[in-house]
Amino acid sequence: MSWIQMPDLVISPFLVQASTMALEKQNKAVDLSHHLSNLSKARVVSPLKGLAKYMGNPNLITLAGGMPHPSYFPFADISANALVSDSFSLEPVERESSLMWVWKLLGVVNAKEKTMPITVPKFPSSSDEINLAVALQYGTAQGIVQLQKFLKEFSLKVYQPAYSDCTTLVDTGNTDGWSRAVLTLCNPGEMFLTEEWTYPSAVYASQPYNLRPVPVAMDSEGMRADDLRKVLSEWDESKRGAKRPHVMYTVPVGQNPSGATMGGERKKAIYDICVEYDVIIVEDDPYYFLQQGDYKPKSERTVATVKHSADKFLSGLAPSYLKFDYQGRVIRLDTFSKYVAPGSRLGWFTCSPQMAERLERQGETTTQAPCGFGQSLITKLLTTWKYDGYVRWLHGLAVEYKSRRDYFIDCLADEFHLKSNQAIAEGIWAGCDVLEAYGKCDGMVEKYSLGTKYFSFVPPTSGMFVWIKMHFESVPSFKEGDEETLEVQLWERIAEAGVLMAPGWYFSATNLVDSGEGHYRISFSNAEFATMKKAVNIFGKTVREFFKQ
Amino acid sequence: MSWIQMPDLVISPFLVQASTMALEKQNKAVDLSHHLSNLSKARVVSPLKGLAKYMGNPNLITLAGGMPHPSYFPFADISANALVSDSFSLEPVERESSLMWVWKLLGVVNAKEKTMPITVPKFPSSSDEINLAVALQYGTAQGIVQLQKFLKEFSLKVYQPAYSDCTTLVDTGNTDGWSRAVLTLCNPGEMFLTEEWTYPSAVYASQPYNLRPVPVAMDSEGMRADDLRKVLSEWDESKRGAKRPHVMYTVPVGQNPSGATMGGERKKAIYDICVEYDVIIVEDDPYYFLQQGDYKPKSERTVATVKHSADKFLSGLAPSYLKFDYQGRVIRLDTFSKYVAPGSRLGWFTCSPQMAERLERQGETTTQAPCGFGQSLITKLLTTWKYDGYVRWLHGLAVEYKSRRDYFIDCLADEFHLKSNQAIAEGIWAGCDVLEAYGKCDGMVEKYSLGTKYFSFVPPTSGMFVWIKMHFESVPSFKEGDEETLEVQLWERIAEAGVLMAPGWYFSATNLVDSGEGHYRISFSNAEFATMKKAVNIFGKTVREFFKQ
Repeated sequence: MSWIQMPDLVISPFLVQASTMALEKQNKAVDLSHHLSNLSKARVVSPLKGLAKYMGNPNLITLAGGMPHPSYFPFADISANALVSDSFSLEPVERESSLMWVWKLLGVVNAKEKTMPITVPKFPSSSDEINLAVALQYGTAQGIVQLQKFLKEFSLKVYQPAYSDCTTLVDTGNTDGWSRAVLTLCNPGEMFLTEEWTYPSAVYASQPYNLRPVPVAMDSEGMRADDLRKVLSEWDESKRGAKRPHVMYTVPVGQNPSGATMGGERKKAIYDICVEYDVIIVEDDPYYFLQQGDYKPKSERTVATVKHSADKFLSGLAPSYLKFDYQGRVIRLDTFSKYVAPGSRLGWFTCSPQMAERLERQGETTTQAPCGFGQSLITKLLTTWKYDGYVRWLHGLAVEYKSRRDYFIDCLADEFHLKSNQAIAEGIWAGCDVLEAYGKCDGMVEKYSLGTKYFSFVPPTSGMFVWIKMHFESVPSFKEGDEETLEVQLWERIAEAGVLMAPGWYFSATNLVDSGEGHYRISFSNAEFATMKKAVNIFGKTVREFFKQ
Repeated sequence: MSWIQMPDLVISPFLVQASTMALEKQNKAVDLSHHLSNLSKARVVSPLKGLAKYMGNPNLITLAGGMPHPSYFPFADISANALVSDSFSLEPVERESSLMWVWKLLGVVNAKEKTMPITVPKFPSSSDEINLAVALQYGTAQGIVQLQKFLKEFSLKVYQPAYSDCTTLVDTGNTDGWSRAVLTLCNPGEMFLTEEWTYPSAVYASQPYNLRPVPVAMDSEGMRADDLRKVLSEWDESKRGAKRPHVMYTVPVGQNPSGATMGGERKKAIYDICVEYDVIIVEDDPYYFLQQGDYKPKSERTVATVKHSADKFLSGLAPSYLKFDYQGRVIRLDTFSKYVAPGSRLGWFTCSPQMAERLERQGETTTQAPCGFGQSLITKLLTTWKYDGYVRWLHGLAVEYKSRRDYFIDCLADEFHLKSNQAIAEGIWAGCDVLEAYGKCDGMVEKYSLGTKYFSFVPPTSGMFVWIKMHFESVPSFKEGDEETLEVQLWERIAEAGVLMAPGWYFSATNLVDSGEGHYRISFSNAEFATMKKAVNIFGKTVREFFKQ
């Protein structure tokens, strides 16, 4: 072991600061310590840091920590049958995700040809191998070294940060990541910038500390740069009851709930404003590798043979904020929740060494390191697949989610008449090909619905969600200001009919829902294809009934 | 699935409040909500709680959450070769822990006869089985149901709480447990009661929030009831700069660092004082099952055949505070760190439903649930071993640690002349059989050390540590007040000679080390037996040299 592992006497090695890439022209991160919260500044480095000097002695005997002997760990090894990295086809599959039916009908054993066995022994023969005795022992909040290495190389290669000493640090997923970041940066009473529609858990994590979101207007690419500048430049401390925000929380790809994805140009513009106003960007990017391209109606889709190339796949993705980050003011949050499994409870920060050090201190007093069972199995999977294999896996998943999105919107097209209409595009829809859903005029659907405009949406190009805006003004009994009530009423009707969607009010950054609103977030990530079909059917029937009132 | 699992829309089932035992005479927990911190009170229950009413519909289709489809989890199953529950003998083993040499020399494969294969499939055939697809999916912060069930039954059976609606809740280990508890209970600026020598991480976790420890004097059983009453009854708010503490942090078994273990009578007395002064007890008890009985010198030890009985083993242990808790004012922290592995990052609270609900809310905004890989494998192990098997495993470990403690003290006895002396017993040593270590007077050891009293200690009856008090007054150049300096100096000398121990100052609850102090905490939990021998040898040599100055 290259560092001291003591449960109550944990000494961290210095964060490795050298980039693995040739970056001779890049500068190091600038000092942004003035952003640290009082809480973060109050966190002390272990007073036993002085121990480090004895670590050079390879024969050092440590009787300092309360570590159990590894022979008392009741696992001789752990193993798994893991999927091979090219399990999922790169050609979009119609209707059903490829492996699911096989697995469900024949059981897992029959899917064996698609799996590979991996094992993590307690006492491996080589010191480079992942060692269960180490992974299950007390360690630092930096996790096992093989995982540290993989994540750092992956982040630098894929996101290409524009400063030289960018580093990574494990966490237990992006909820933990944001929770740590916001407490490291914000003092109680402060406000942070976010999209006007946002991920509710991010708000709930910060709200008990009296940290409130400031909504920034959105369009089809997510947060708008012009409104961000407006909010910052016109900030009135006395009116807002808080000093100008110095932290931004943003989901720039497959935004939750809107599904919006932000390109490089917008990110560059927002980054520059953040430099100007000295704002730290917390980039929560769980859907980054689920970029799916534009939706095309079924009749226009062609299936082409795709040859995988990691470089080509990655260069086709919207860049991370890190790509423009020449100062180290971005704290990027990545997670395995969408690419391995949510139960992994494993993710990582990519940020400056200064921020990583403070974020590590915060982690030490709660979860310490992520679970050793999860770290071992995921690291073994990643190092078996290797970088190229993992990118191939991500590519396969992106195609799977594309199939799911396409199928879900196809279902909507079967149920409603979808009409493309750029003319109505405004606000969050600006510049987009909006699809408007009207009643269908054929024998299968009730005549009365002909011509009624029920809802509209922009087909998402990333992520897991379709965000629909209801046209409650088409309800005959509609009165101005009814939208909020109608959103709840229709949501309840649909739930009673057996389909649960997420109501729009849940995602309002301010909970001050504009009376002209009325949204639902519908996820296409989880249900079986046949179930999605059924759900859209129930949704359609309930909507048409509701709009008669 | 019996509850909704949505990553950003998590709805918890109501905490199951019915005890599994017949407790008709017991009352429910009293309302202690006035202890909740402002932070905890500010945590909201998900506004989607209303969803619960739709959960009765078994055909409900949920498109609400951002859950990936389980076919995208790249694991078909996970498995392990786990040790059988009676792997460790109940007869103390001399010198070497039983399995270690075999494993190291012959490799793990040769230990196969001692292991059993366990597997957690992604799609098990029975709905009762642990389901990897569920364990790796988003879930509530309550963890997988099979684990919830095991832990609750275990806690109620083993600790026998004295109120009827005691419940359990998973966390990611006791550091997380204490961190959540202290933030749930204390507002910034408050003080909490603890032993005068205490676990430093508990202090570091709370210190950034401006929560400070109040030391209570100790004796051989740990915290003293008389001093606790004195501290509480004489509390002077203006002098202390904080209101009277309403929270206690205590490690009652194998106390860290002193190794002291508290019996039932003392616990009852302290509990009653806590009722009187309305104090919540946070019982951090990681070493509970490592109760080893009294140390006897090698010559007096006899090896008797032990037949395992779960009831007999458990009834021989000091009771938990829960046994006296008729009000629900104890928050007990248990962990798998010492019984499975520290890297499990899995533990649990045993407390009232009121506290469990608030502790769960706090967990939701950070780690959410513990890692699904760890939960699955540990739950599969526990449910394979079953309750009796797990208790047998714990019994085996207790005997292993007894062997380690005995061996370590035997090493000290080989290196020094250990003299029993009750007469010097005072303070933390009161009522104990103190062993004083003198220089040996035989050909093997330098003559000069004859008669020098180097250190003294009370052989611990639980846990992992020997806490020794140095007699620096025996150093010829000693001057009043030198102890602190000498503690650091000798510690450095020993580290330079190749042995790392934990210096006493690190464990002071106040960092106001009494000038008469000078301690080291030495762990016997981790090193190989031969290494312990070598370490004690180096320690002895360095101490004797040091005391010549």
